[in-house]
Amino acid sequence: MSLTPEQKAEIEEARAETRQTLRPVAPALEEILYTAIPVLDRGFVRVVDYMGDDAAVVQAARVSYGRGTKSVRGDEGLIRYLLRHRHTTPFEMCEIKFHVKLPIFVARQWIRHRTANVNEYSARYSILDREFYTPAPEHLAAQSTANRQGRGDVLEGAEAAQALDWLKGDAEQAFTHYEAMLNETPAGETVDPDRRGLARELARMTLPLSTYTQWYWKIDLHNLLHFLALRADSHAQYEIRAYADAMLDVVRRWVPVTCQAFEDYAVGGAHLSAAGLDVVRRMLAGETVAQEGSGLSAREWRELMALLGRD
Amino acid sequence: MSLTPEQKAEIEEARAETRQTLRPVAPALEEILYTAIPVLDRGFVRVVDYMGDDAAVVQAARVSYGRGTKSVRGDEGLIRYLLRHRHTTPFEMCEIKFHVKLPIFVARQWIRHRTANVNEYSARYSILDREFYTPAPEHLAAQSTANRQGRGDVLEGAEAAQALDWLKGDAEQAFTHYEAMLNETPAGETVDPDRRGLARELARMTLPLSTYTQWYWKIDLHNLLHFLALRADSHAQYEIRAYADAMLDVVRRWVPVTCQAFEDYAVGGAHLSAAGLDVVRRMLAGETVAQEGSGLSAREWRELMALLGRD
Amino acid sequence: MSLTPEQKAEIEEARAETRQTLRPVAPALEEILYTAIPVLDRGFVRVVDYMGDDAAVVQAARVSYGRGTKSVRGDEGLIRYLLRHRHTTPFEMCEIKFHVKLPIFVARQWIRHRTANVNEYSARYSILDREFYTPAPEHLAAQSTANRQGRGDVLEGAEAAQALDWLKGDAEQAFTHYEAMLNETPAGETVDPDRRGLARELARMTLPLSTYTQWYWKIDLHNLLHFLALRADSHAQYEIRAYADAMLDVVRRWVPVTCQAFEDYAVGGAHLSAAGLDVVRRMLAGETVAQEGSGLSAREWRELMALLGRD
Amino acid sequence: MSLTPEQKAEIEEARAETRQTLRPVAPALEEILYTAIPVLDRGFVRVVDYMGDDAAVVQAARVSYGRGTKSVRGDEGLIRYLLRHRHTTPFEMCEIKFHVKLPIFVARQWIRHRTANVNEYSARYSILDREFYTPAPEHLAAQSTANRQGRGDVLEGAEAAQALDWLKGDAEQAFTHYEAMLNETPAGETVDPDRRGLARELARMTLPLSTYTQWYWKIDLHNLLHFLALRADSHAQYEIRAYADAMLDVVRRWVPVTCQAFEDYAVGGAHLSAAGLDVVRRMLAGETVAQEGSGLSAREWRELMALLGRD
Repeated sequence: MSLTPEQKAEIEEARAETRQTLRPVAPALEEILYTAIPVLDRGFVRVVDYMGDDAAVVQAARVSYGRGTKSVRGDEGLIRYLLRHRHTTPFEMCEIKFHVKLPIFVARQWIRHRTANVNEYSARYSILDREFYTPAPEHLAAQSTANRQGRGDVLEGAEAAQALDWLKGDAEQAFTHYEAMLNETPAGETVDPDRRGLARELARMTLPLSTYTQWYWKIDLHNLLHFLALRADSHAQYEIRAYADAMLDVVRRWVPVTCQAFEDYAVGGAHLSAAGLDVVRRMLAGETVAQEGSGLSAREWRELMALLGRD
Repeated sequence: MSLTPEQKAEIEEARAETRQTLRPVAPALEEILYTAIPVLDRGFVRVVDYMGDDAAVVQAARVSYGRGTKSVRGDEGLIRYLLRHRHTTPFEMCEIKFHVKLPIFVARQWIRHRTANVNEYSARYSILDREFYTPAPEHLAAQSTANRQGRGDVLEGAEAAQALDWLKGDAEQAFTHYEAMLNETPAGETVDPDRRGLARELARMTLPLSTYTQWYWKIDLHNLLHFLALRADSHAQYEIRAYADAMLDVVRRWVPVTCQAFEDYAVGGAHLSAAGLDVVRRMLAGETVAQEGSGLSAREWRELMALLGRD
Repeated sequence: MSLTPEQKAEIEEARAETRQTLRPVAPALEEILYTAIPVLDRGFVRVVDYMGDDAAVVQAARVSYGRGTKSVRGDEGLIRYLLRHRHTTPFEMCEIKFHVKLPIFVARQWIRHRTANVNEYSARYSILDREFYTPAPEHLAAQSTANRQGRGDVLEGAEAAQALDWLKGDAEQAFTHYEAMLNETPAGETVDPDRRGLARELARMTLPLSTYTQWYWKIDLHNLLHFLALRADSHAQYEIRAYADAMLDVVRRWVPVTCQAFEDYAVGGAHLSAAGLDVVRRMLAGETVAQEGSGLSAREWRELMALLGRD
Repeated sequence: MSLTPEQKAEIEEARAETRQTLRPVAPALEEILYTAIPVLDRGFVRVVDYMGDDAAVVQAARVSYGRGTKSVRGDEGLIRYLLRHRHTTPFEMCEIKFHVKLPIFVARQWIRHRTANVNEYSARYSILDREFYTPAPEHLAAQSTANRQGRGDVLEGAEAAQALDWLKGDAEQAFTHYEAMLNETPAGETVDPDRRGLARELARMTLPLSTYTQWYWKIDLHNLLHFLALRADSHAQYEIRAYADAMLDVVRRWVPVTCQAFEDYAVGGAHLSAAGLDVVRRMLAGETVAQEGSGLSAREWRELMALLGRD
């Protein structure tokens, strides 16, 4: 992470002033409000604002006049029931807003989640900082041989060194050319008075996908949990998972009961098809069941047995 | 409006406790937070929570590290510029949550706005209160003769009295049958032990569209302004306009600068087509322009002349 | 169902003319295109248009230049894989448009699915036909005693007769008053020249929730399957389930491979939490597992045992 | 544009087979269905499927049983009325699906339109072709001096040559390193058996934002017109405007009446605020109006006078 002294001062100033409100407050989230949580080599996630707490989920589910709380225990039971049975609308009643700094190739995966609000730093309007992502050695992985869409073991030795050299070298060179084509300092001063400077909206296209960008991103709790279920998952690319993991810690501070239910039900769980469920029932009843006659294809059978720990 | 003593107590309790927060606060909105603003004969709008303020719009537009404010005057200029040029995403960064009590026929118009979150009181699960909308005499209007989709003059005399009688009488009778079919008091006690009671999800279908329902409704500021532009408009049905007007007062308390810009640009403004704009330019240059040759149809010409105050 | 001769003629005319196209065609769906499939006592579902077929899912998943098909068997495997692993975006690439006639209380449940396009018949602009839903005797159910949000056994005898009387009587009376207040025939002729007629937008509010309305409803295949998973489910109210069942038959004609995969994976399947999955694994390994120590609450345990057929 | 012989053959094969359908057909669109319309140096837009035509807009607005057409002239009047008065839902009832090849920096602007369905070619799963965008000399523009977010004059001479050299050179070098890090040919053969190859999801991040990607993109007519209003506008970056212009030609073939109304009302038109409208009315009435007292700020006044051709 790389905040300038000015940015640090802005954050500290925002944290300095306490106000009075009648709204619900999440104390553990207030503790870290505005502060930048480091992710990857130069990225971060900051919570900029939030609306609601665990009780707000209950309040909406009951369409209540007051805070909606009957008892802490009753609320917890209701939240777990709602999440387990996929009654999703009450979780849409909480909202959170993040400021995120992230590499562009991560931003491109992230933006596929459409049910959110976004304001991105404009490289048509402004000049991007010389900041790009370089994987730490332990994350420089070979292509998986088993999975076309995944990583295998860590790359080592000369091949790793060469890859890192190219990743860094290409990015450094592209930024040098970017700045030279702009013919302008970040502060807006012309460098060479005899040149006119290429338009920002064109110059940026030489920059690599590892370049860092930033955005404000606002989403409701239900859609955030859906994002986290997909992106904090082991099938997600490591780089976006690093952000999802940081945000999951934020959710734990914000709505601890909902977060616990989410981790209990969504993370590490699995969906069984009707045919798969039937296989399980028959096995539990003592029957010997084979793929043939199970109604499952060979591939589905393998996936089920792996899930049941019987491969 | 008709809050029970229990509901009033819940609202007062919610207003009693002040908390500390580092988040932005809208003081004029805090003044009315949770309180029910009466609309129509028994409906209301209550603000239950909100996120952000005018400065949050600026903060998102600048993707800033701090509060985003340079100067109050600079912020105002930027907000007006963004709204005038339809840069809508920064306005999506503020969010508000309402509790609304409204007749079902109004709810059916309202729900057409899809970019919002909703939790409605369930008549499958719960029993509806005996509450329905009856128009005040000054809102009991005849069908417009000029506009198939509008109201004309107020209905008076025997015809008005008859209509009110039927509207009230049908609703009263339907509620009486509803309660009798349920065979259950709102408190959940069986009335006649020899009857089983019709399922709630079926019994409700005898109720009229004037029946009041309630929901929690959450929306971002951009989409709320779009809702208000359509529903606080003179073409909207009076009953939903009454809600929109109440909500516009809420927006004024919440984000006064944005609200002023909205009223200046969106309310009372008009869109001119390229051909219409050309007619205006030629007229301003002293030319006499006729419909023929203007590129406008007779109907478009009439609409333009009415807009320009020249009919 | 109750189509007028004019409506029948319009449908037949639409079915009379065949055109040439280069687009994919679903022959089994063309067989029923435009025809009204009866639902409930007077409702229907009609397919008005569609885009894509099973191969279009494959084509989009492969971002291919041609039709996307490698082999029928290969396509089927890919479609099943995509659906099983919730890769949902290729299923968004097919679209279907329905014309639906349905009671208003069903329309209110239906519209909660926001990711669709809707054009509803306007009762501000037009006069509604005298058509309302009355449950068939076998669907006139008592309130469930086990489930606050469900039906129990069929209601019989005097109680059933009374309920049907009220449901029909209230609706008939409301329609009579509606028409009298409008003072206008459906053809637009004034009835009593000495009266002015109440505005349509007001008169409608005396009508019951059982009144039939109509709309055009357009949705992509992914969101339609999500709708059907919720609404063709046994927990859905019977009346909306009747529509979902009719639409599931339509989907089978349209995209048979996708529909089969949907029925195999989504219908009748279940989600297991990580803790629930762990219980299953231990039981399959021969261990005796009790609720205590399982990490499941008593209620979660009961739900799991019921699912596994061990209660 | 650069289609391989295989891709051309796939397109020709798709165009070879005509089918029968009862659905509406847009003949002028069928003429170009599947064919690639060149955009920029190597990009294209192809229509892959569509649903509906001008008459389908009318049909939905009328919630009709047949094709919805009363007369060609009546339909045209209704379509123009709907578009002029922003009754947008009937236009959502037509849908179109494109296959687009476009530079990544254009894709990033494009994806900000959220109300669409997208399937993008995956660089986690597949290897990208060595294809990147280089501006033609006449599009290599200097930064605008008047507008922070725009282009000025064309860059010429040594500065232009240098910029083109860097843009091409950086991209060529990045692709060479990308391929070397992958250690795999596009056909999937290992290059150097002693190396393992960097994971595709990592290697891609060295590629520049000028790299071409592809996607399937599906959208309804209303949202497409909104996209075109913003992206075929002179304030849009030239590169995305080139795509919007090509798509506007497609819309003209698909729904000519709607397209004409869109061009008449949306393109080249302008929104007047209530205060601005008042100024116009007073000027037309012969009054001399000055900024002071007009209710407009100095900037708003300048914008209005420019619009009216009086600056």
